Amino acid sequence: MKFADRLQNVETSAIRELFKLLGKPGIISFAGGFPDPALFDATGIAQASAAVLANNPGPVLQYGATEGYGPLREGISRFMAGKGSTVAPDGLIVTTGSQQALDLIGKCMISPGDKIIVEAPTFLATIQCFRLYGAHIIGAPIDADGVDVDRLEQLIDEHHPKLVYLIPTFGNPSGAMLSLARRKRILEIAVRTQTLVVEDDPYGELYFDAAPPPSLLALSDTVPGSREVLAHCGSFSKILSPGLRVGWMIAPPELLTKAVMCKQFSDAHTSNLTQAICAQYLTMDRLNDALAVVRKTYAERACVMAQCLQRDLADAIAFNAPQGGMFFWARLTGVNGQCANAADFAKRAIDQLVAFVPGAPFYAHDPDLTTLRLSFATADVAKIEEGIGRLKLALG
Amino acid sequence: MKFADRLQNVETSAIRELFKLLGKPGIISFAGGFPDPALFDATGIAQASAAVLANNPGPVLQYGATEGYGPLREGISRFMAGKGSTVAPDGLIVTTGSQQALDLIGKCMISPGDKIIVEAPTFLATIQCFRLYGAHIIGAPIDADGVDVDRLEQLIDEHHPKLVYLIPTFGNPSGAMLSLARRKRILEIAVRTQTLVVEDDPYGELYFDAAPPPSLLALSDTVPGSREVLAHCGSFSKILSPGLRVGWMIAPPELLTKAVMCKQFSDAHTSNLTQAICAQYLTMDRLNDALAVVRKTYAERACVMAQCLQRDLADAIAFNAPQGGMFFWARLTGVNGQCANAADFAKRAIDQLVAFVPGAPFYAHDPDLTTLRLSFATADVAKIEEGIGRLKLALG
Repeated sequence: MKFADRLQNVETSAIRELFKLLGKPGIISFAGGFPDPALFDATGIAQASAAVLANNPGPVLQYGATEGYGPLREGISRFMAGKGSTVAPDGLIVTTGSQQALDLIGKCMISPGDKIIVEAPTFLATIQCFRLYGAHIIGAPIDADGVDVDRLEQLIDEHHPKLVYLIPTFGNPSGAMLSLARRKRILEIAVRTQTLVVEDDPYGELYFDAAPPPSLLALSDTVPGSREVLAHCGSFSKILSPGLRVGWMIAPPELLTKAVMCKQFSDAHTSNLTQAICAQYLTMDRLNDALAVVRKTYAERACVMAQCLQRDLADAIAFNAPQGGMFFWARLTGVNGQCANAADFAKRAIDQLVAFVPGAPFYAHDPDLTTLRLSFATADVAKIEEGIGRLKLALG
Repeated sequence: MKFADRLQNVETSAIRELFKLLGKPGIISFAGGFPDPALFDATGIAQASAAVLANNPGPVLQYGATEGYGPLREGISRFMAGKGSTVAPDGLIVTTGSQQALDLIGKCMISPGDKIIVEAPTFLATIQCFRLYGAHIIGAPIDADGVDVDRLEQLIDEHHPKLVYLIPTFGNPSGAMLSLARRKRILEIAVRTQTLVVEDDPYGELYFDAAPPPSLLALSDTVPGSREVLAHCGSFSKILSPGLRVGWMIAPPELLTKAVMCKQFSDAHTSNLTQAICAQYLTMDRLNDALAVVRKTYAERACVMAQCLQRDLADAIAFNAPQGGMFFWARLTGVNGQCANAADFAKRAIDQLVAFVPGAPFYAHDPDLTTLRLSFATADVAKIEEGIGRLKLALG
């Protein structure tokens, strides 16, 4: 069978192979990017589902509008207002998870050979998704405050990319939080260079203490013209449930229209039932309480992970403690002749029944082979203490 | 904003514009391709949802496998066995409606400029979906027994298409049912020419009297080598509920693997909740009863529509009464100087508060402007009688 040429641009990810090993009995995994299912408000979701299916279920079970289920678009509009962003219901579309928002952006924007700038490192599935549309992807370096804006500006001026993709708040895999000053500068650069910026924001609600700076979307009110070059992707996956597959995209009307056309031929529309459940849930006044529990739990786990890493892997690993999200991003220092290759370390760790993800696949090019990602979202405190102890053993 | 070149291959459909007019008060619509929501087994779906969310809901609300939810893959395997097809659970993947199966096939198979053969006329969203991947689409003529196989064979030999897309059973828009003899020949041609055939089968269960001939998939056991060049798309949309957005794709392992990779970057996976609801529903022994009601209702409506068309539009319209599905495909004869342009007729019909879809958009090229599609699925018998009467008035 002769497949489409575009498939030559991507490989089945090395991470997928690693994930097959996670079924080993007794393994403690820091590898996944999954929220803790024990924190899902299953009761609230069940109540929402029952309400939706009890009361005039016909429209919810019928075909629906490609743009999204009306009451959910209104609910997301209110939710975004609570986060400081003014978005009319028809200024957003619902997507089958935020992954589909990325796919629609790729389909709408990227011609083969187009350049795209992303953070180095960034979300693996974005790299692959855009490559399937023929993108040539360029990485911009990051530090603990997010992307290096001076370097990003140079890269934009040099390459004139079709778009810049960023996860400004508690990035995956970096955990980094883009500073307020850098956020403003990015919007200014986007306006000056008329470059579309895609802000992916699945983790913004998962902060530990103070709320993060406003999103690029919320800040766009303060930078004239920036809203016209900004797309924003949101998701219920990390705040309610990923299994529902409900996300959204906010973008200039012209892009939104094209995305709706593409979505019509991608999956017609997102499940009306899961959309209606989300819409109903948003009216039930449970989300803030549920989120408070998630924030507290993840904050505690991140704190314990930081302490254990300090205690057990002291000089072998360097990292910045995140202020939210789900990930530690770390670097093997290699001092004292210790292991400096994260892929090797990952194999040794599996032997000790603990798993994490080496950082290399998160780079579009020139991977830093010393890097690794540790998720603190799924394992509880006892497992984190035990798992980091096992990492110490793996270090040998 | 400069969009991707591929968007130049498609237009927002003329049908979409027509559909905006359907909100007119008092209109009787034969335009949609929607099942009748009054026939949805909402009680069964609500019971399935409650069961799924009551009992260990964590895995259902969590991220899931891109290939699909295990119990549903098993349920679809059993369902297909009941239709005479042997398919292992890992021989199929779950898709976000069968529209996504088409999108994945396009993404996996079509390079810009590749030729694709479809029926003329065929499902509009398939044409558009494949064009977004750069397909050059060639139409093969049909009659009441489905695609003209001699002509199809000539076109395959002439164009060496990447794939042939067919809706063999109660096609949309044609309503036609491919004869058993033609089904076998198509499989033989596919093997001889090593051409991938995509069988789209959303309507096969909606037969009125006798069951239709076995699907190409079921027949593939009798034609050596044909299973290796056959993909089959199925869906719960017409037999349970389109709002759930659950379909499936059966294909050779090599294509299935590529489709899973593409799906990973399209929407990660289909909603676990709606998949689990479908899986639960299939175990509840309600589907056969629900389908019996749907078949009886649609058969009655089709019968009434045929009678009314004969009565009211006698020599003005020619059509073959369908044996299942949701559609009449008709042609304005233009005899006695009557209207012979379906687009003009559609406008006059709207003035009389009755709607249908002109046939032209269902052709990839060289549209037959006299054709039109009438759906009998959504309007009840009284509305069908009244609506066809209005069509007579529109004829003038």
